[in-house]
Amino acid sequence: MMARVRVPASSSNLGAGFDCIGVALDRWLVASVTPVAGSEIWIRRNGELTAVSVAVDQDLLARGFRAAGGRGGMIDATSDIPVGCGLGSSAAAIVAGALLADAALELNLTRQQIVEIATAIEGHPDNVAPAVHGGAVLSVRTSSGLVTTPLIVAAGLELLLAVPPFPSDTKAARAVLPQTLPHGDAVLAASRAAALVQGLSTGDGALLGAALDDVLHVPFRRGRIPGYDAVVAAAQNAGAFGATLSGAGSAILAIAPRERSATVGAAMIAAWRDIGIQAELITCSSTVPGATVIAATHDVRRTTHDSTVIKELL
Amino acid sequence: MMARVRVPASSSNLGAGFDCIGVALDRWLVASVTPVAGSEIWIRRNGELTAVSVAVDQDLLARGFRAAGGRGGMIDATSDIPVGCGLGSSAAAIVAGALLADAALELNLTRQQIVEIATAIEGHPDNVAPAVHGGAVLSVRTSSGLVTTPLIVAAGLELLLAVPPFPSDTKAARAVLPQTLPHGDAVLAASRAAALVQGLSTGDGALLGAALDDVLHVPFRRGRIPGYDAVVAAAQNAGAFGATLSGAGSAILAIAPRERSATVGAAMIAAWRDIGIQAELITCSSTVPGATVIAATHDVRRTTHDSTVIKELL
Repeated sequence: MMARVRVPASSSNLGAGFDCIGVALDRWLVASVTPVAGSEIWIRRNGELTAVSVAVDQDLLARGFRAAGGRGGMIDATSDIPVGCGLGSSAAAIVAGALLADAALELNLTRQQIVEIATAIEGHPDNVAPAVHGGAVLSVRTSSGLVTTPLIVAAGLELLLAVPPFPSDTKAARAVLPQTLPHGDAVLAASRAAALVQGLSTGDGALLGAALDDVLHVPFRRGRIPGYDAVVAAAQNAGAFGATLSGAGSAILAIAPRERSATVGAAMIAAWRDIGIQAELITCSSTVPGATVIAATHDVRRTTHDSTVIKELL
Repeated sequence: MMARVRVPASSSNLGAGFDCIGVALDRWLVASVTPVAGSEIWIRRNGELTAVSVAVDQDLLARGFRAAGGRGGMIDATSDIPVGCGLGSSAAAIVAGALLADAALELNLTRQQIVEIATAIEGHPDNVAPAVHGGAVLSVRTSSGLVTTPLIVAAGLELLLAVPPFPSDTKAARAVLPQTLPHGDAVLAASRAAALVQGLSTGDGALLGAALDDVLHVPFRRGRIPGYDAVVAAAQNAGAFGATLSGAGSAILAIAPRERSATVGAAMIAAWRDIGIQAELITCSSTVPGATVIAATHDVRRTTHDSTVIKELL
């Protein structure tokens, strides 16, 4: 069976929710597969995916497809998610691949299985979980496995992402993290992760401000993003509760009250423009749905190319 | 003016909410003051407070009273909060002292000011905040000061505290904490603090189980409480989502679904009895109010001794 899926972008960490909290964004990777005999995979990359240059077998679409049980196939994918900018393009590709296998081979995987398959490849669930479930999601490793749970995001909050035209090397961003932390910093980090969950649900600006002022990863990574301090300060001065790296960057996420959104977004773009960097703004003011099979048919050519949802994943 | 106040016990940390989350319990310290000329303080200790033997000037009631602006006074205090067992007896005494000064001297302090005065003496806000505000409270240090916010606790949850007849030395329990933690443990701790806030509000057992399995302090402290592992295992086997130290111990806190509450409580007490320790059970199934002025009059002898609330603190 031929299948087509769409998977949203996502922003992970949100400051203190390092490696455990992420939120889906209204940018999409859309991919279709035509299964073929044998184990060969072909991939056509369009849109932002033209920036990807790895061999097909290392392509995250192919890895997700195979990890979920797919074998041979022709995958056609397009995306408006900037690659390598901390917007979950990798997680979207892995989830899309797994979901294509699920839909094309009628595997009836649960969302939880898709999350686990994709997390095993990605290494951490914070982008994978919102890419699959939509909205804001908390993922916690427990003695009985990975638990994912939706987080409430207060209605008056706006997420703004300023995306510069250069990527950040995620592996290098992990390498700069220290082996140990002072115990007091770990205690502070825990209180701020609690503040993030509580601040998102209540919209409390003081809690969100504390939550976005992370101590687990941002202090070690911010120096890698030119203009980071200026963009964060601009967002705060324009009325954002706070701002931080989206994932490991390069994008910078701000959370602001809706009525300050336009001002905050303009200030972030202007701060980067001041040092010669032309950034793009992505805003998110309502819950974005998760990964969806938009077509599954024995003849994919008959389906339309719009994004009408014709089947919600289980 | 003479004044009488009552302040609840509290359980702090709740596993992953180390030094930032606490919940008020239905045990009380009740204290009254008759201001006198000069700066001398007299204290009469009754109930559990007879276990306190420090000099009056070092008594936490006196320290709270003076820190809030009180000078001389005759303080009469009684308490059914076991002292030194991780049930917030220190925080209750400090808050009671501060609130007595506020009521007797008509200082019109806000709850936030009481929290800040008491936290400065206690060193951390996790017991002080629920003692003042009641219910479950998250306290977060931010760049603009301490923020306290009420947490939702799902209706079906029961908190159970098994209290052994021996205290735990809080200072010694702090001294066993390591100077540093592996970065990965700090990341895990943050996700579990997020899980605690989310689990309390939703009643999700998997999240609460993870949240109660702390890595910031319990691994270093549990060996100090005889029977800790057996009591925690008994609670879990009887249907609790998890169990952990209350504060730094000696009491052990379990969180269980209401319908398993009786079984869990009995199992915890039995586990300690098996090693010759006669513990007491305290349960908490609904929101306990915070510190309250129960009488403020120019002649305290005229007021009744019941706990009728005649003035809610601002």
